[in-house]
Amino acid sequence: MRELTQPSRDEITFVEVLHALADPARLQIVAHLADGRRESCSGINEGMDVHQTTMSHHYRVLREAGLTWTTIEGRSRYVTLRRADLDARFPGFLAGVLTQLPEPARPS
Amino acid sequence: MRELTQPSRDEITFVEVLHALADPARLQIVAHLADGRRESCSGINEGMDVHQTTMSHHYRVLREAGLTWTTIEGRSRYVTLRRADLDARFPGFLAGVLTQLPEPARPS
Repeated sequence: MRELTQPSRDEITFVEVLHALADPARLQIVAHLADGRRESCSGINEGMDVHQTTMSHHYRVLREAGLTWTTIEGRSRYVTLRRADLDARFPGFLAGVLTQLPEPARPS
Repeated sequence: MRELTQPSRDEITFVEVLHALADPARLQIVAHLADGRRESCSGINEGMDVHQTTMSHHYRVLREAGLTWTTIEGRSRYVTLRRADLDARFPGFLAGVLTQLPEPARPS
């Protein structure tokens, strides 16, 4: 399992986090991961009406801002929300964001 | 006293607010207004090392996103943070942002 280059906790900046969140599709991804789940990008993509190339861009923006942690396993990428890192850097902020987001529609 | 076109409370969207906040200079303006003060743009500009044209752009982004309310009096513009509107639309969110911001340096 290899990992992508992504910022350490201390490298995460508030402006970059705000920028990464300022997009409807990226907010939808964050809402999907809000409960702490680790999810494959392909699994998230299924529930969203966005072209895969655009989705790849959104995952990169979220990863580079430090909002998500991405791992590669074989041909799949998995993402989780960096809740602990974000709570340590910006106490209370992410919770304040998540409460604004609708519950994601998830397949039963 | 005339007023600029700016969104009503119900027209404020979370994505636009996040976008407006995702800039160091705009965060600095918001921090300056955090205590509820009504401030002239020229007064805010004095404390910031940003070109006036760029500052005008920042005020417009904040205003159009619904973060600030702007009034024109004579040749001066005054801004306030739309705290009540933002709290009504996105409960707890703005407080979560403001706690991340440094106290602005203010002339004594």
